[in-house]
Amino acid sequence: MEVSQVLHMNGGVGETSYANNSLLQQKVLTLTKPIREEAITKMYQQSMLPTTRGLGIADLGCSCGPNTLSVVFEVIKTVEKLCQELHHESPEYQVFLNDLPRNDFNSIFRSLDNFKEKLNKEMACSVNGPCFFLAGVPGSFYGRLFPSKSLHFVHSSYSLQWLSQVPEGLEKNKGNIYMASTSPSNVLKAYYKQFQRDFSLFLECRAKEVVEGGSMVLTFLGRRSDNPSSKECCLIWELMAKALNYLASKGIIKEEEVDSFNIPQYTPSPSEVEEEVLKEGSFEINRIAVSAVSWDATYHNDWNTMENDEFSASEILASDCGHNVAKCMRAVAEPLLINHFGSEAIIEDVFKEYQEILTHYMSKKKTEFINVTLWMSRKV
Amino acid sequence: MEVSQVLHMNGGVGETSYANNSLLQQKVLTLTKPIREEAITKMYQQSMLPTTRGLGIADLGCSCGPNTLSVVFEVIKTVEKLCQELHHESPEYQVFLNDLPRNDFNSIFRSLDNFKEKLNKEMACSVNGPCFFLAGVPGSFYGRLFPSKSLHFVHSSYSLQWLSQVPEGLEKNKGNIYMASTSPSNVLKAYYKQFQRDFSLFLECRAKEVVEGGSMVLTFLGRRSDNPSSKECCLIWELMAKALNYLASKGIIKEEEVDSFNIPQYTPSPSEVEEEVLKEGSFEINRIAVSAVSWDATYHNDWNTMENDEFSASEILASDCGHNVAKCMRAVAEPLLINHFGSEAIIEDVFKEYQEILTHYMSKKKTEFINVTLWMSRKV
Repeated sequence: MEVSQVLHMNGGVGETSYANNSLLQQKVLTLTKPIREEAITKMYQQSMLPTTRGLGIADLGCSCGPNTLSVVFEVIKTVEKLCQELHHESPEYQVFLNDLPRNDFNSIFRSLDNFKEKLNKEMACSVNGPCFFLAGVPGSFYGRLFPSKSLHFVHSSYSLQWLSQVPEGLEKNKGNIYMASTSPSNVLKAYYKQFQRDFSLFLECRAKEVVEGGSMVLTFLGRRSDNPSSKECCLIWELMAKALNYLASKGIIKEEEVDSFNIPQYTPSPSEVEEEVLKEGSFEINRIAVSAVSWDATYHNDWNTMENDEFSASEILASDCGHNVAKCMRAVAEPLLINHFGSEAIIEDVFKEYQEILTHYMSKKKTEFINVTLWMSRKV
Repeated sequence: MEVSQVLHMNGGVGETSYANNSLLQQKVLTLTKPIREEAITKMYQQSMLPTTRGLGIADLGCSCGPNTLSVVFEVIKTVEKLCQELHHESPEYQVFLNDLPRNDFNSIFRSLDNFKEKLNKEMACSVNGPCFFLAGVPGSFYGRLFPSKSLHFVHSSYSLQWLSQVPEGLEKNKGNIYMASTSPSNVLKAYYKQFQRDFSLFLECRAKEVVEGGSMVLTFLGRRSDNPSSKECCLIWELMAKALNYLASKGIIKEEEVDSFNIPQYTPSPSEVEEEVLKEGSFEINRIAVSAVSWDATYHNDWNTMENDEFSASEILASDCGHNVAKCMRAVAEPLLINHFGSEAIIEDVFKEYQEILTHYMSKKKTEFINVTLWMSRKV
């Protein structure tokens, strides 16, 4: 599988589209908003000279849907506020939205007029159309995407856990589709190596593209634990493997196909992320923060209370949760499944079974995704 | 009708797509290639300092299909050749592809990997992936699209004849869908005014975006004559009006609907184009060239022999010509027709009738589109 040609969130605006099933990713953006605001402020102070007219902003793995332009909106709003406070002239914003070539850029572009209207309305006269330039940039962020020293602020949320390829050497990961407690150690090593290779390449590329003093805020789907096959990051895929294995047992898909299916993802720990940044050497880490968000984003769970275990199974309807989480995962994983199993026909079966398994599990246990957010500055 | 929300070439890669019916536009690009090469050479000498690392290139009205990236390829090839001759290091190319938001950018982006392969292959080691950055920019070129002083070379072919809106005051243009010999003079004036307003705004915007010494090469679908309702530019639409009027007479569409349908286009003469450039004042005209291309692009007609009337009706199969021209026009005008007449169902009827009318006409007369190509430099 050529990941860069296959991986994309479900396009369009239909029921199974990512645009309609990205509440989870929106919640994560809300959680990480304070870090972004701080990062933009520092970036503005460190990299914007009074003579700098253009401000380069990139969102990497922008996908398509309500979240795509919401970060752009927030960034511009923060800079505009700074400009007003400091009595500076507004810069020209050059916003680059990046994702793999199969992302539905057409949908983003067609929503742009509404976005510009909203922008002009909210910011009164300070931002008029002419100051905001948007471009879509197709391609893998594990390679160069932008001219040298053209970016002041780089953002990425829930994208960098995706690897550039399925690691090599996963033949013995039978019955699993990701790292799992039953995965042999060479599988875990192969995944980690791929993460190291990819993330260090990412850092090298961005080091060339980000101006000195520029900021990056990157949020990975990750884990707290040092154990890469820990349930906190692997369970969501273990339950999908369970659904696939069930379909294999019924003869709907082949067992070998499940065995050879592996998710091109790595959910790193804070220290694994930190290690690569230190090794590459171009960026200074300002902060690494860990947060958590319930699998079912409709379940209330905020930044301030995340340490408190207020979970009560009886409070939530487990069946709704299963339904929501299955839909969220479908919007993300459907293209990978169709590519591997070669048929759209099985998708309904997979997610029906997955939903049941999720519902059963979520009625008993608290289930959370762990987010690792990294804020860095390009060294001067 | 909001032109910027409606106008686009037919997307995708199907039988009626623009991608499969843009041989005419490709021929025009071949005709104007020598001017582009000269313009790029002059631009390189005038605006590229040895310290300039990045070269900004924009194609305005890029559409989607084989032509979209062919101009980009040619521009890069020309600059690479110059760099080799002058023993300069290759610059970083920042290529912006612009079109209205309904253009099929997804198709362009998905063809990018093949394009990069071709680029790397043809230019040996001189251009590697990292030096070429491509971005899609959705929006009307009758407004700002790019940061100040970010472009070195701007190209546009067969796009600038499209107006930002249907001119106001066309109520009396009954039975016509464009300027025609039977159009009242206030209709001709309204069209011309809209052209003046649009093109002067275009020039103002580009004046801010193009660096000093930077070049623009713009090819309009235009005319030689001073008469704006001359057959050389209006006939193609007069014949479509004939098809629509025929459908109205059969009750398939309403007469009032034909009366209120007007194409948002203006096909200027060289002197009309020149006048706006002189009025705006930021650009110096290096050349204005006029060329012609047969309506049916499969018919041989080249730059060098265009003055000779070698046309012989017997040589070509008029029915093939009618078919080809109808398909070409369908790829361009279908979205406008669907938007106005509110139904996809009539499209087959319109183009069947149009094809017959074209076939009949082309069996008797030589039919050509006139291209007005303008090469300018941003004044220093």
